[in-house]
Amino acid sequence: MTTDVAILSALRQTPTGGISGAALSAQLGISRAAIWARIQEMRRLGYEIEASPHSGYRLLRVPDVFHGDDLLARLAQPRVIGRQIRVFKETTSTNDVVEKMALDGVAEGVVVIAESQTKGRGRLSRRWESSAGKGLWLSVLLRPSIAPQAATQVTIGAAVSVVRAIRQVTGVEADIKWPNDVQVQGRKLCGILTELTAEVDRVRFLILGLGLNMNQQPQDFPPEVRKLASSLAIESGEPVDRPNLAARLLEELEHDYARIRRGDFEEVATEWERCCSTLGKAVRIQMGDRVIQGRAESLDGEGALILRTTHGNLERILGGDVTVLK
Amino acid sequence: MTTDVAILSALRQTPTGGISGAALSAQLGISRAAIWARIQEMRRLGYEIEASPHSGYRLLRVPDVFHGDDLLARLAQPRVIGRQIRVFKETTSTNDVVEKMALDGVAEGVVVIAESQTKGRGRLSRRWESSAGKGLWLSVLLRPSIAPQAATQVTIGAAVSVVRAIRQVTGVEADIKWPNDVQVQGRKLCGILTELTAEVDRVRFLILGLGLNMNQQPQDFPPEVRKLASSLAIESGEPVDRPNLAARLLEELEHDYARIRRGDFEEVATEWERCCSTLGKAVRIQMGDRVIQGRAESLDGEGALILRTTHGNLERILGGDVTVLK
Repeated sequence: MTTDVAILSALRQTPTGGISGAALSAQLGISRAAIWARIQEMRRLGYEIEASPHSGYRLLRVPDVFHGDDLLARLAQPRVIGRQIRVFKETTSTNDVVEKMALDGVAEGVVVIAESQTKGRGRLSRRWESSAGKGLWLSVLLRPSIAPQAATQVTIGAAVSVVRAIRQVTGVEADIKWPNDVQVQGRKLCGILTELTAEVDRVRFLILGLGLNMNQQPQDFPPEVRKLASSLAIESGEPVDRPNLAARLLEELEHDYARIRRGDFEEVATEWERCCSTLGKAVRIQMGDRVIQGRAESLDGEGALILRTTHGNLERILGGDVTVLK
Repeated sequence: MTTDVAILSALRQTPTGGISGAALSAQLGISRAAIWARIQEMRRLGYEIEASPHSGYRLLRVPDVFHGDDLLARLAQPRVIGRQIRVFKETTSTNDVVEKMALDGVAEGVVVIAESQTKGRGRLSRRWESSAGKGLWLSVLLRPSIAPQAATQVTIGAAVSVVRAIRQVTGVEADIKWPNDVQVQGRKLCGILTELTAEVDRVRFLILGLGLNMNQQPQDFPPEVRKLASSLAIESGEPVDRPNLAARLLEELEHDYARIRRGDFEEVATEWERCCSTLGKAVRIQMGDRVIQGRAESLDGEGALILRTTHGNLERILGGDVTVLK
C-alpha cells in the first residue's frame, strides 16, 4: 500500500470528525512532515483536504478524475480484481494496454483505466466512442483456469456486476441485452468486450474490457449513435460520482468473478436471466453472413444463448448481433 | 518476389542442364552483373552453384540451413501459408515472434522458422527441447473466421499435414496421438501447439506452432525424454533434407488449411481418424486435476475427442494428456 492509499483510506474512515497530523503519523508510521507533503500533492491533484489546528485533516471533496491510489483506498482487501490499478490520461485502448501487460507476465487482477481512449473498440473491432472525462473505460486482466468456450461466463458475470453497481450508486434500473450490452429502454449504457488468449483447451489470459457511459449529455455522442446510446447522467438526471461508481463496480466484479471461480456460475446465470430483456423475446441474430430468427429461450451452462428457431429447432448461439423483434 | 527467390526458382527449374547468365538475365530482367553478385552472396551462405562457360549456372547442393528465399522458391504460388517466410538463427520461441507480428497487424500466412529456440514450449507451457540445426521449429500466423472452440480443427489439420509430409519425404509411417502429437511407436516426432487470441465468439488470430524432430541422434535428447522422443533420422536411418521437408510441409499445411476454410473439415477428420493410434483404445486422460478413463471413440465436428467412459457415458474432451492403456 502506498502512502497516498494509506492517508486517503484513513481520511475516509473519519469522514465527519477529522484526524490530527499526530494521530495520522502514529497510525501510519510516517513523519508528520511526510504526511503534509503528500497532502499538498493531493491538493494539487484537486483533492480538497482541510487542515485545521482544531479538527486536523478532513477530506472535503475529491476531484472528478480517476486516481489509482484513491480507488485502491476505497476497496476491501485482500482482493483479486484491482489488486493493482493503473490510470492513464489517454491511451489507444485499455484492452491493448492490458494485453501488453499480460504478455509481460503480469499477475491477474490488474486494472487499467483511461480518462480517454483514442482507439476504443467494441465487439468485432467496432469503434467505441470514449470521450474524455465523461465515462469509465476500464480493462481487467484475468487468468482463470477455464476452457476458451467458458469465457462467456466472464462476460455474463460482468454484465450483472454492472447492473448492480449502477443500481446501487445511481438508482438507475438497467437491463441486459444478450450477450454484452447493458441498456435502458434499448439505449446502450455499457458495452463489454471480453478478449482471450488461449491454447485450444485452456485460457492463458482473458481481458475483460468495459465502457460505461456516465456523464455524457446527448450532444457528446456522435449524431449517428445519439438515438442508440445513453448515459447515467441522462437517465438519472444528475451527474454521477465517477470514482465512487468505479470503486463500486470493482467490488461487484470481484464478487462475480469469485462466484465463477468457485464454480457457482449457475447462480450468476440466474441473476443474469432476471436482468435480461432478451429472453422470452422474438429475436433476429446476425452472425457474420448468417441470420437466424427465433425465440430467445435461456442461457446454458457456458453462457451461450439457447434459441428456439422459427423451424422449432434449438440452436446454441455463442455471439452475434441481436435485434429484438416487435 | 526477391531476386534470390527468382534466381533459385529458375535454377531449380533447370536441375540438370544449367542456365546461362544471359538467359537468366533475360528471364528475370536483371543485369548479368547483378545476378553474379547474388550468386556470390548465395555461395557465401553455403550454396554450391557451378558457373561454367559451357553449361552456365547450375545448383549443385544447398546447405543444411533454412533460408527464407530458398523455401519460397520451392513453393507453389499464389498461397496463404508461407506468403512471407522469416528465418531466425535463434529466438525465444517462434510462437512468441508470430504473436508480436500478429499484434502489429501482419496478415495471415506469415511463417517464422528458427534454427534454435531458447524457450521452445509445448502445451501447458512445458519446455520443448529445440536443439540448433537438428529439427524444424516453425510457427504460422492464421486469421480464420471461426469461433474459438473450432480452433482444434487447425491442430487436427496440421497433424495430418505433418504425417503426409513425413511419409512423402522420408517414407516414415507416423501416427497421431490425440490431440497434437505425431509419433512412431509411442515415441514423439512432432508436437503441435495452437494458441489463439479471440473475442468470445470469434478468433482474432491463431498461431500454429510446430516442432518436428529431424536429425537428432538419441544423445541429442535430454536423458529424461530419450525413451519418449525420436527423430526422422533415427526412424529412417538416414539424415533428412531439412529444407526439402520444410517446403513439403508448408505445401501440405496450405492444402489442409484450404480444406478447413472451405468448410471441408469432415474430410480432414476422416483422414485424421485413419492416422490416429488413439481411437478405439482404452485411454486415461488427465485434464488438470481431473482424470477420466474410457474408450476413445471418435472425433466430433469441432475436433473434440468423444470418449465412452467406464460408466458408459459419452464425454466430449477438448484437451488433456492421453495415456493409452494396455
